Amino acid sequence: MGRHFLQIPGPTDVPDRVLRAIARPTIDHRGPAFARLAGEVLERLQAVFRTRHPVIVYPSSGTGAWEAALVNTLSPGDRVLAFETGHFSALWCAMAARLGLVVDLVPGDWRHGADPGAIAERLTAAHAAVMVVHNETSTGVRSRIPEIRAAVDRTGHSPLLLVDTISSLGSMDYRHDEWGVDVSVGCSQKGLMLPPGIGLNAVSPKALAHRGRLPRSYWDWEPVIAANRDGFFPYTPPTNLLYGLRESLVMLLEEEGLSEVFRRHDRHAEATRRAVRAWGLEVVCADEREHSSSLTAVLTPDGHDADAVRRLVLERYDMSLGTGLGRLAGRAFRIGHLGHFNDLTLAGTLSGVEMGLRAAGVPIEEVGVRAALARLEESA
Amino acid sequence: MGRHFLQIPGPTDVPDRVLRAIARPTIDHRGPAFARLAGEVLERLQAVFRTRHPVIVYPSSGTGAWEAALVNTLSPGDRVLAFETGHFSALWCAMAARLGLVVDLVPGDWRHGADPGAIAERLTAAHAAVMVVHNETSTGVRSRIPEIRAAVDRTGHSPLLLVDTISSLGSMDYRHDEWGVDVSVGCSQKGLMLPPGIGLNAVSPKALAHRGRLPRSYWDWEPVIAANRDGFFPYTPPTNLLYGLRESLVMLLEEEGLSEVFRRHDRHAEATRRAVRAWGLEVVCADEREHSSSLTAVLTPDGHDADAVRRLVLERYDMSLGTGLGRLAGRAFRIGHLGHFNDLTLAGTLSGVEMGLRAAGVPIEEVGVRAALARLEESA
Amino acid sequence: MGRHFLQIPGPTDVPDRVLRAIARPTIDHRGPAFARLAGEVLERLQAVFRTRHPVIVYPSSGTGAWEAALVNTLSPGDRVLAFETGHFSALWCAMAARLGLVVDLVPGDWRHGADPGAIAERLTAAHAAVMVVHNETSTGVRSRIPEIRAAVDRTGHSPLLLVDTISSLGSMDYRHDEWGVDVSVGCSQKGLMLPPGIGLNAVSPKALAHRGRLPRSYWDWEPVIAANRDGFFPYTPPTNLLYGLRESLVMLLEEEGLSEVFRRHDRHAEATRRAVRAWGLEVVCADEREHSSSLTAVLTPDGHDADAVRRLVLERYDMSLGTGLGRLAGRAFRIGHLGHFNDLTLAGTLSGVEMGLRAAGVPIEEVGVRAALARLEESA
Amino acid sequence: MGRHFLQIPGPTDVPDRVLRAIARPTIDHRGPAFARLAGEVLERLQAVFRTRHPVIVYPSSGTGAWEAALVNTLSPGDRVLAFETGHFSALWCAMAARLGLVVDLVPGDWRHGADPGAIAERLTAAHAAVMVVHNETSTGVRSRIPEIRAAVDRTGHSPLLLVDTISSLGSMDYRHDEWGVDVSVGCSQKGLMLPPGIGLNAVSPKALAHRGRLPRSYWDWEPVIAANRDGFFPYTPPTNLLYGLRESLVMLLEEEGLSEVFRRHDRHAEATRRAVRAWGLEVVCADEREHSSSLTAVLTPDGHDADAVRRLVLERYDMSLGTGLGRLAGRAFRIGHLGHFNDLTLAGTLSGVEMGLRAAGVPIEEVGVRAALARLEESA
Repeated sequence: MGRHFLQIPGPTDVPDRVLRAIARPTIDHRGPAFARLAGEVLERLQAVFRTRHPVIVYPSSGTGAWEAALVNTLSPGDRVLAFETGHFSALWCAMAARLGLVVDLVPGDWRHGADPGAIAERLTAAHAAVMVVHNETSTGVRSRIPEIRAAVDRTGHSPLLLVDTISSLGSMDYRHDEWGVDVSVGCSQKGLMLPPGIGLNAVSPKALAHRGRLPRSYWDWEPVIAANRDGFFPYTPPTNLLYGLRESLVMLLEEEGLSEVFRRHDRHAEATRRAVRAWGLEVVCADEREHSSSLTAVLTPDGHDADAVRRLVLERYDMSLGTGLGRLAGRAFRIGHLGHFNDLTLAGTLSGVEMGLRAAGVPIEEVGVRAALARLEESA
Repeated sequence: MGRHFLQIPGPTDVPDRVLRAIARPTIDHRGPAFARLAGEVLERLQAVFRTRHPVIVYPSSGTGAWEAALVNTLSPGDRVLAFETGHFSALWCAMAARLGLVVDLVPGDWRHGADPGAIAERLTAAHAAVMVVHNETSTGVRSRIPEIRAAVDRTGHSPLLLVDTISSLGSMDYRHDEWGVDVSVGCSQKGLMLPPGIGLNAVSPKALAHRGRLPRSYWDWEPVIAANRDGFFPYTPPTNLLYGLRESLVMLLEEEGLSEVFRRHDRHAEATRRAVRAWGLEVVCADEREHSSSLTAVLTPDGHDADAVRRLVLERYDMSLGTGLGRLAGRAFRIGHLGHFNDLTLAGTLSGVEMGLRAAGVPIEEVGVRAALARLEESA
Repeated sequence: MGRHFLQIPGPTDVPDRVLRAIARPTIDHRGPAFARLAGEVLERLQAVFRTRHPVIVYPSSGTGAWEAALVNTLSPGDRVLAFETGHFSALWCAMAARLGLVVDLVPGDWRHGADPGAIAERLTAAHAAVMVVHNETSTGVRSRIPEIRAAVDRTGHSPLLLVDTISSLGSMDYRHDEWGVDVSVGCSQKGLMLPPGIGLNAVSPKALAHRGRLPRSYWDWEPVIAANRDGFFPYTPPTNLLYGLRESLVMLLEEEGLSEVFRRHDRHAEATRRAVRAWGLEVVCADEREHSSSLTAVLTPDGHDADAVRRLVLERYDMSLGTGLGRLAGRAFRIGHLGHFNDLTLAGTLSGVEMGLRAAGVPIEEVGVRAALARLEESA
Repeated sequence: MGRHFLQIPGPTDVPDRVLRAIARPTIDHRGPAFARLAGEVLERLQAVFRTRHPVIVYPSSGTGAWEAALVNTLSPGDRVLAFETGHFSALWCAMAARLGLVVDLVPGDWRHGADPGAIAERLTAAHAAVMVVHNETSTGVRSRIPEIRAAVDRTGHSPLLLVDTISSLGSMDYRHDEWGVDVSVGCSQKGLMLPPGIGLNAVSPKALAHRGRLPRSYWDWEPVIAANRDGFFPYTPPTNLLYGLRESLVMLLEEEGLSEVFRRHDRHAEATRRAVRAWGLEVVCADEREHSSSLTAVLTPDGHDADAVRRLVLERYDMSLGTGLGRLAGRAFRIGHLGHFNDLTLAGTLSGVEMGLRAAGVPIEEVGVRAALARLEESA
């Protein structure tokens, strides 16, 4: 009884008004009402990515949008430079390899973001693209894209810059045009507060000009951009999710405003870290400049299984937390604090974690929730 | 952004599945599908009231069900014995007077329930009925109905016993038949987790036999009971709310089970009182035997306006608390912890109150939320 | 499979957007967001009744609003003049009698509206009120209120004029102020396209000044009008139905516009009568000036059970039609063509009736649907 | 006002209960509740395709499922035999060519299905696959898959048989296993009565064994099948659409039953053709054995623009019809009569077409709707 707390770092809790929007009857995707809907969504998506250039909407998961970024721009055998920042960066690299690309991987310890310093050492004229995950959903570490952009520029090479914004878009400051990103990859079920089912590519003019030779049809940007001019799609678009997307974009852009959205996420992330530290635990992210504002990954002490904590929290307190992925399996859990979220939901979330940790026998100080509330009060 | 915390003592948060049930298309209220729906609802309503006798469903507010209890059983000029337990008992008495009844009022201090001891002193053969509010929504004080029943019986008189269960039904132990209640008055928007719009009367055979002469038509039990035998109503029934009621009754009776529902409410009420005491504040209810399990009314210290606290909590933390009513105006606020509610929602609620109290300058100890969590952990 | 056709004359098909509005979370009925909602609804209700005076919203069925009209204005033993126009006029009279009023009934044949000519003969200074049903839902006959008003005025007496607009409000031209009506009685589930659960009274200054002595509390206008001034209610209002009412009033008043709404209903009613006549059947209404625009009652030939037709239509074509009530039981069925309804829904409806009539062995000409389409085409 | 008639051949009208299912809160796609949901959907999808082998669910449009069928089974430069049956077969061939396959196209006149006789003439050992559209959505022509299967078998060659069932799945008889199909391609927004957003592949053991070398990652069947064993997905699945899919599969398989679903569609298609012929117009499909049961494409006489008819029908009667595509542009319109559809909806639909044709000045006989009703009555 009572609401489930869905505190994984995505899918996030969908606002009930977005769910009701999605429940509107499907309409003719070749008719005038659809064209208006598409226009309203596409224009607002540009505002979320902070771009004046096209944003492509796919009926797909976020991984589909990863694939789209690669197959539109690269050719078989192309070499790309990538960073091992966590589980999702590894999956994207594996996808690139499967599609016939050669991946040069800058290794990492999963506690730091992509190292701008490695660019100078590793990037060569042979690299067609640099792939970076802006906010690593498996670790809660944010990579510093503007510094990476600057480092690339300093090399004098001109690879495409492909950035995964899956768990930062609409939650953390992100600027496609200003930061010189060529393809930004996003999806619906994180900061955009929608169910899964939409993948996104924001595309720079340079990326559009630089079409690769990997085979593509479904993911091909060109027919989408052409059809979008009139508000239509070359495939049957996910109409009902677009109803929801219009609603959530209005909430983010026009009602709360993006800067306030970011401020809210920053504040909740800080309060969460206060709680973690007050418990005497450690967050995964090891660099103060690189904390994610949409999720916090927490290390459990040696000998304490993070998944046991998660199971207890789910059974006793009806809250879903994110599991540790890859090399963090069993060693960390993740708290999602993004999307449709506020102070009291954070208080409930951290209370559940605190009770779950104690129930699982993890030795903690008791002042975690109190420390978080104190942080919230500083800036109420 | 994020969900509003609706922590008034009713209307309570309606579960999303109940809202979806209510959104089903309206059907013909004279057709076979409706008759099945009505049958399923009426049978389960008996289980909630713990009665084998008829339960009447009105399209009305709870006050309508108050009126129905009076006009079906009493005659102009009838004398009734009532107890001043708080704002709502006073309103019910005022209604009785407006309808032409003579109310003998046992005065009270709004911090205790109806006094069983007063029955022996005050009840006479001239009293046609005794009116008691089981759970005074304005004070969070529960009257001890079985003791009142016993006290009535000891007098040898046989007035009807009319009990308001508006904010206890489906949240706190209540037994229409076993406790010898003649008319129990309930409604939809509290423990039954529905929007407002349904009033309820559970009716004993004695009440049915004892028809008063107050004029009545809409509220008349007889045509309803007659039509209900086939699953129909003499007026157009509130079909969509009945869809929701079926859903919420399944949740309470078949999924969670009433005894677990009561245990949950008792536990959250205790945790709330722990927080209040840890803050160094006082609850309105002054008798340990009489604490409500569905809401807690909290006194603010002299010089601290309870409504100022409520306003701050609404503005800063997007939570609605109940206002002080009548003689408690400005001196108390009320925390609803009933219905679709769980541990983490309680933690969020108490966190909001704690932050709001401090923001309003009410001197409190800081350990309130922590004390509540400790109580939750004892019985997780 | 496919949608049920709910073609009873109320409850009517609720638009899906109204259902979604009703499914919004319930809010605090004492908070600022509620006050805004109430203000928006109350203002638009005045526009629907065409009145500048108060409209009272009850959590009730339409019969509750009948009772409210009587108990607010009349005193025990008061004499009222009423017209036997059909089943519902009879029920309202029976209610008046139960409440202690003396009803003088002008008899009728259920095929004509209230006879303005009878006023001169029957109305005396002793009559405190005249009760008329504007659109008799059991017969599809509309009474001519302006002519009744004029006839009353010609007598020189000044009874209150109480009018039931239950199945005409929001579907057929109705003017509370201009026609000099004192209390207009309406409800939610007909032309207002909502589920059942709201009863309405529009109240003239004369009615407000003329308070009767029948006992009343729930139905008392005065505390409602007082509380409504700030956007609140003296009882817990049916918040979720009010969400829906706001939506449907926007659809009627601002999107389609009342005059277009009436034109649409007139046109569908005419097309329906064309079909009935083309089948060689007879409508109940016997006066061309008095056809209802919201429903059509159809007589079946002698020896043909109207309910057998209805059952076949329900079983084979998944459409609910209205049954014959009272003295029309078995002799007539009723087609609702009001509310959320359009040309193609009418075509489906009449097709279902045509197939059902033939399936039931009722001898008909085949051109019914075709005749209706021809009528629709004349004014597409 | 009134419901829009969405009579394009997909997206089809989504039942309101499916829309409500989709509006349930999104859950953790790695948790136990999700695994149960996935299991229930995947098992029922096998029943719809009539296969014991895996069915793959993609967050994608139907065109995504086309691409998946190709990239999983074929290698760059592979030769495939395909049939020009209409606009969608042409699009699928164009996709194959873009992906680097060589398409041998059997030409067609868009009024017949794929010719089984052409197989003997054209199929060679060099063909890796045969591509057929079961029900050409642009023409309303059904190809005879069992005869094509038999013709392939008679050649002694063993190409994969890839079949598009996009507008027939769940509406017309289709048997993946029995007919020896290797990959069946389907999607959500037609007979499955869902919004767009899910693409489907049913996959034979032969197809699974025969993995091609086209690059693939998102579309790769293997990780999906592996993860599905435990009820999970290698990408974030479209949870909310899966809620809806579970609901619609229950409606099709368990409530109505597939054979009754097919009978219903056959009957509505026949009634539609009766109307078309009674109007004196011609359907596109020229072979009595090949009529689609899910849509009917109607030719307008020379000099009458089919799109002008569609525009009038949309403006005057609020119904969307399908446009003529490719070489049928302006010469034909398409009536969708699939999915959540019944007799009275068909009557409304054909009435709208009849009125629209006349409004557009297309010379027609008047008896169209009447002829359709007569057909419905024969088998009510």
